[in-house]
Amino acid sequence: MKAHLITVGDEILIGQINNTNVAWIATELNQIGIDVVRMVTVGDTPADIHDALRTAFSEAELVLTTGGLGPTHDDLTKQAIASFFDKDLEYQPPIFEHIRQLLESRGRKTSELNRVQALVPQGFEVVPNPMGTAPGLWYEFEQGGKMRYLGMMPGVPFEMKAIMEQSLLPRLAAHAKEVIIHKTLLTVGIGESDLAEKIGEVSIFLGEGATLAFLPGPKTGVKLRISVRSETSTKADMVLEKAMTHIWDRVGHYIYGEGNTLPEIVVGELLRKLEKTIATAESCTGGHIADRLSDIPGSSAYLLGGVVAYCNSVKMNLLGVSEADLSHHGAVSEAVVKQMAEGIRTMTGADIGISTSGVAGPDGGTPDKPVGTIWIALADANGTEAKKLRLFKDRILNKEFTTTLALDLVRKRLNLLARSVTS
Amino acid sequence: MKAHLITVGDEILIGQINNTNVAWIATELNQIGIDVVRMVTVGDTPADIHDALRTAFSEAELVLTTGGLGPTHDDLTKQAIASFFDKDLEYQPPIFEHIRQLLESRGRKTSELNRVQALVPQGFEVVPNPMGTAPGLWYEFEQGGKMRYLGMMPGVPFEMKAIMEQSLLPRLAAHAKEVIIHKTLLTVGIGESDLAEKIGEVSIFLGEGATLAFLPGPKTGVKLRISVRSETSTKADMVLEKAMTHIWDRVGHYIYGEGNTLPEIVVGELLRKLEKTIATAESCTGGHIADRLSDIPGSSAYLLGGVVAYCNSVKMNLLGVSEADLSHHGAVSEAVVKQMAEGIRTMTGADIGISTSGVAGPDGGTPDKPVGTIWIALADANGTEAKKLRLFKDRILNKEFTTTLALDLVRKRLNLLARSVTS
Repeated sequence: MKAHLITVGDEILIGQINNTNVAWIATELNQIGIDVVRMVTVGDTPADIHDALRTAFSEAELVLTTGGLGPTHDDLTKQAIASFFDKDLEYQPPIFEHIRQLLESRGRKTSELNRVQALVPQGFEVVPNPMGTAPGLWYEFEQGGKMRYLGMMPGVPFEMKAIMEQSLLPRLAAHAKEVIIHKTLLTVGIGESDLAEKIGEVSIFLGEGATLAFLPGPKTGVKLRISVRSETSTKADMVLEKAMTHIWDRVGHYIYGEGNTLPEIVVGELLRKLEKTIATAESCTGGHIADRLSDIPGSSAYLLGGVVAYCNSVKMNLLGVSEADLSHHGAVSEAVVKQMAEGIRTMTGADIGISTSGVAGPDGGTPDKPVGTIWIALADANGTEAKKLRLFKDRILNKEFTTTLALDLVRKRLNLLARSVTS
Repeated sequence: MKAHLITVGDEILIGQINNTNVAWIATELNQIGIDVVRMVTVGDTPADIHDALRTAFSEAELVLTTGGLGPTHDDLTKQAIASFFDKDLEYQPPIFEHIRQLLESRGRKTSELNRVQALVPQGFEVVPNPMGTAPGLWYEFEQGGKMRYLGMMPGVPFEMKAIMEQSLLPRLAAHAKEVIIHKTLLTVGIGESDLAEKIGEVSIFLGEGATLAFLPGPKTGVKLRISVRSETSTKADMVLEKAMTHIWDRVGHYIYGEGNTLPEIVVGELLRKLEKTIATAESCTGGHIADRLSDIPGSSAYLLGGVVAYCNSVKMNLLGVSEADLSHHGAVSEAVVKQMAEGIRTMTGADIGISTSGVAGPDGGTPDKPVGTIWIALADANGTEAKKLRLFKDRILNKEFTTTLALDLVRKRLNLLARSVTS
């Protein structure tokens, strides 16, 4: 099945925001065998929306629109689409009731503008929006003897994603014909070109219909995505299996998981399984390790808490770091980062203490400790280990990579523990 | 002048990468008074490229393409555009010489594929690419008595930017006639429909050529973007001034900044100006407030640190929260969140303590304290205030919104301080 994606919004056309929705949607559609053949962005102008719809339905069976469903005067998508199909708009009280309840639960009142959001073009199906006031809409019709599908969603990414995941993707998966399978292997601690070199020439292990993509990203490390497209799932599975075996064989040491997981999820699962607790002592990451650990539902079962020790007095008073070591070695040193990891264990009683201290940048570097010099340490009942990193000039990247590498240190320690438990 | 942007590339259509080029180009064109009215992404397929060009020149005077100029077999843009205009491709030795020198300087050799990059459609002008092998191209022609302009660039962002900045933008600036100015006001603590209602009917205060857009987002709250287009900048400024005055008058209480700033930047600037320090005591936000504050370069000047008090023993031991209040009121209560804010001030000596405690979800809610029930508190020398929030079912959104609202509490307190200092 072919799809067109239509984005409606002046904020995209003037360059105010990057249109990240379309990449997300395209990835999801691809996984269920739907090909996106065109992406179009137009302004909040009925004539342009009509024109985009006309082109879309001349080529594609599926058209998804995002944007322009909000409550304000510049949101015109619904009206434009209703007039394109020559439909009247009908007021649907249950939608307004959903909006009223949602706003009330946030301590807000509805306004006359929200009533406009409860207008639905005749014959369109309402698709629930669990995250916001603008409902999604769905319409099926026949054109030249073939079925055509139109899905409309708000442009706010988390609302769009909720509607796609809960309603539209399951519905669309039923229409797909070809089998496309993807497997993503998640690596950490190795760069893209090193990975490529270790994996070697792809034509040797990639069978028919298979491709391998390298997708770098600071939060997850480089992802390796293997895609196989085939007529039968048995065939696709065989090709995938062969590629996977080769890659695990070559770079398995760097792989921490598969699919959409994250280091903090993998670490959380291990902590839960081994019934261990963790606490953080962060300087240069500024709370980002605790933040990412606590993003995971149920993390309060193993995350006791942490200290963000930005200034030296907090390192001393809350973590018991020695003043002498701070002045002798400096805050960015093996001695201090180890004491931080040990200190947070003592203060909280956690099984594992994890710590960071470094020069995140962009300023504060010295010839001795340039920006990107970062120490991480882990302390548990078996002792304390520290690791020195040489990262980047960019502050946010340094925080993100340091967090990912610190979590990987925890993962490796927990894996050792898990092995000694089972053996 | 109206422009269409055409992106050519399968990697965009399968969602592998976000198309960040178009936002950058649109912002740059806007500043010289050129309106992007449509953005289209098509695959490396001549028929789709032709189709996009046909639509583009039916509406726009300027068409810019990115992508598909590389050396490999799937780069077809130049061939497709040559055939669209019925031009032959001519081999231009100086281009090949440039490629040879560039590759040599990087220790690489040219291949037969690079010769294809030296092919230019008849009558097209070569625009130098200082950063890569694929040159940009420029073509001017008449259509129905009007001039039309076509610029072609490679898709690699830094190559595209170099070509735009050095060649195409200066050339296009000469063609621009109109002035377009934008101003973005950033609000927090109020929803889109409430804002719209308070601001009122736009036709009353929006002068000629002005538009107002509402752009929601969890990290920044709703943004209000006013755009004005006019023949002269004096006229545009006057219209903008009138709109700004009206909006500040109606909803100024919710506005924390203008342009591309963030709550953590605004708070950081105020702390620096007033020479105050801050520390965090976070339960449900799990370190996210400290994390966002520490994202800002130089934040170590005012952020002393913080405690992530996920379990009750950390709340008691590191923040001095009373065990009796914890068991009597529960962790999610006014009494506890106030003691947390006061406790972190005492422990760190910071001027301001900011704290959070709530049910982030997705589980853990009770009839009394459903998911989304969150307390925030601020303590300083003038006393302690607490605020109860009723947010969402989603954990990540709850962390993000709570952080934004907590930072806004700090901003408001610091603004009061700033006023009492100046008065």
